[in-house]
Amino acid sequence: MMSSETYDRTSEDLDEIYAFAVQLGKDAGRMLMDAAQSRFQGNGDNRERPVLELVEKENTVDIVTKTDEGLCALYKDVEAFIKSSIADRYPHHKFIGEESYSKGSSRAYLIDNTSPTWCVDPLDGTVNYTHLFPMFCVSIAFLVGGSPVIGVIYAPFLNQLFSSCRSRGAWLNEQQRLPLIREPAVPAMPKNAPAGCVFSCEWGKDRKDKPDGNLLRKVESFLTMAADVEGRGGKGGMVHGVRSLGSATLDLAYTAMGAFDIWWEGGCWEWDVAAGIAILQEAGGLVTTANPPPDPMTAEIEPVSLESRLYLAIRPAGPSESETGRQGQERTIREVWRRVRELNYQRPGA
Amino acid sequence: MMSSETYDRTSEDLDEIYAFAVQLGKDAGRMLMDAAQSRFQGNGDNRERPVLELVEKENTVDIVTKTDEGLCALYKDVEAFIKSSIADRYPHHKFIGEESYSKGSSRAYLIDNTSPTWCVDPLDGTVNYTHLFPMFCVSIAFLVGGSPVIGVIYAPFLNQLFSSCRSRGAWLNEQQRLPLIREPAVPAMPKNAPAGCVFSCEWGKDRKDKPDGNLLRKVESFLTMAADVEGRGGKGGMVHGVRSLGSATLDLAYTAMGAFDIWWEGGCWEWDVAAGIAILQEAGGLVTTANPPPDPMTAEIEPVSLESRLYLAIRPAGPSESETGRQGQERTIREVWRRVRELNYQRPGA
Repeated sequence: MMSSETYDRTSEDLDEIYAFAVQLGKDAGRMLMDAAQSRFQGNGDNRERPVLELVEKENTVDIVTKTDEGLCALYKDVEAFIKSSIADRYPHHKFIGEESYSKGSSRAYLIDNTSPTWCVDPLDGTVNYTHLFPMFCVSIAFLVGGSPVIGVIYAPFLNQLFSSCRSRGAWLNEQQRLPLIREPAVPAMPKNAPAGCVFSCEWGKDRKDKPDGNLLRKVESFLTMAADVEGRGGKGGMVHGVRSLGSATLDLAYTAMGAFDIWWEGGCWEWDVAAGIAILQEAGGLVTTANPPPDPMTAEIEPVSLESRLYLAIRPAGPSESETGRQGQERTIREVWRRVRELNYQRPGA
Repeated sequence: MMSSETYDRTSEDLDEIYAFAVQLGKDAGRMLMDAAQSRFQGNGDNRERPVLELVEKENTVDIVTKTDEGLCALYKDVEAFIKSSIADRYPHHKFIGEESYSKGSSRAYLIDNTSPTWCVDPLDGTVNYTHLFPMFCVSIAFLVGGSPVIGVIYAPFLNQLFSSCRSRGAWLNEQQRLPLIREPAVPAMPKNAPAGCVFSCEWGKDRKDKPDGNLLRKVESFLTMAADVEGRGGKGGMVHGVRSLGSATLDLAYTAMGAFDIWWEGGCWEWDVAAGIAILQEAGGLVTTANPPPDPMTAEIEPVSLESRLYLAIRPAGPSESETGRQGQERTIREVWRRVRELNYQRPGA
């Protein structure tokens, strides 16, 4: 494996890798959409359709497919396509994919600080995909020194491609710069944030109804964010809207776009967020941990830990008369931390 | 006003009205998207941008705009365009629009059983629109005898147009029949529904944190639907996913498409749902009241009341080995009713 010392990360390299990643995202998204369309009426072809078998595991919601056909095959095919494309073009790059990773019994964090690495989810929003709800996508990140520097997220049913390359910019459909609203200026964070904010969150797979489980901690946090300002003992966040898309990756993409102001989530994995974090950061967003520190109003706001499974993202923000964009984002993070419970997600086998 | 007796509802008429409504939806959606795009960077034109003023009313979330510009003007423009187009083509049809309606102090129900009537929301998903989150749309319904017989929902940022004409069919983008998944058959409702279902719901504008308010009744209902089957005193619904888009109209459209299995909502209005109900029913879905009757397992399943502000919609369903599609839908309705609280929404001034 090539180390970062020998990896010549020139400007040309990164531009070239970016162009390659965008094309890869488009091609992989097309594979997902072709398979989806084969389930529509009237296609008349004999392509294999994803055949799903839903299995409810103990207290969690998950999808298990027949081993030799259907969705599992699609996952494998798309990931194999991405992996082999990368291996052909960049044989010395490391590859971490959701599909191959999940087969291992350990969930140790495999991204290191020395190898140029691709971190890929061939299909995020699997439940949406099986129902043909358009919020599904492929997610491709390229990391250098352990940090995502290129991100590509393509939602083929929405025909929306989010992409970024460090120090170059972040875009929707390769044309519109992110965040979208920039004229006359990128909006500042609302004065009374989280009031006025669109809040994005997910119910997740862990559904155990136990007093201190993640489900009840999440719901209590959602409720505090939503309630009127007099509510919840004066902690009500009165957010402008609560959104749940069923795709952590697209939640982050829409936060990078500025469509969501706040995304708060626990339980997803690095392949769900690596590309989104690249895009969000390049667009000017800020991402840190979902779990509030003991002193939320004064604690240092640490950079996000990719392996943490705990994420809080704030959209790109412009300055107001009284603060910089970054100050507005940090203020918003503290106001979210004040209102949410600590979540408990671990890495089995780590 | 023409009565239903003199209104010649021939097959040709309805086809012609349908084609007119589809074009109207496309044109109105284009107006919304043009205004949205004028807020993107780099357009370089001088079109007026929606200028928003967010006002938090007492315990509710709402948007109030400056009276002479911005979003309020866009609402008025789009509704005026639709209204005048209809008046030109069908001068004897009645028109009810969200924008003009809202100006009245009364919210009496104005749809009657005798007049051919258009019921229109020029922009549903207003908060999404102001944030440029793509889940916004125009909604146009045509009603005969008090029932929606034509529905057109166009989400221009998604480029998704949902439409239906009674006894003719329901479509996505005028091509794909709804529901989308039909091969080899429209799926039956899951055996243990709501388990296995994607559940769509909205947090809404009423955020009063009082013990028996709508907010807490909603959240308790969401939680019961989401929790594992042993949870909530054995009532846990273990739905496969919980989705909140911030647009009642698109929730219904995606239920008609089969992307959502269940949509449960209180608080929206007839112009939010009339077109979606037309499309859902034509696609084979079933819609009734959100509020559980005293005997949920045996009560008659009443047809939806458009003015009720309380809606429970089930996607189109095929038969299983043991029941018809309709039986599966009714079973699902009862299982939802068993798990949700009664909501309390009234019509001020009615």
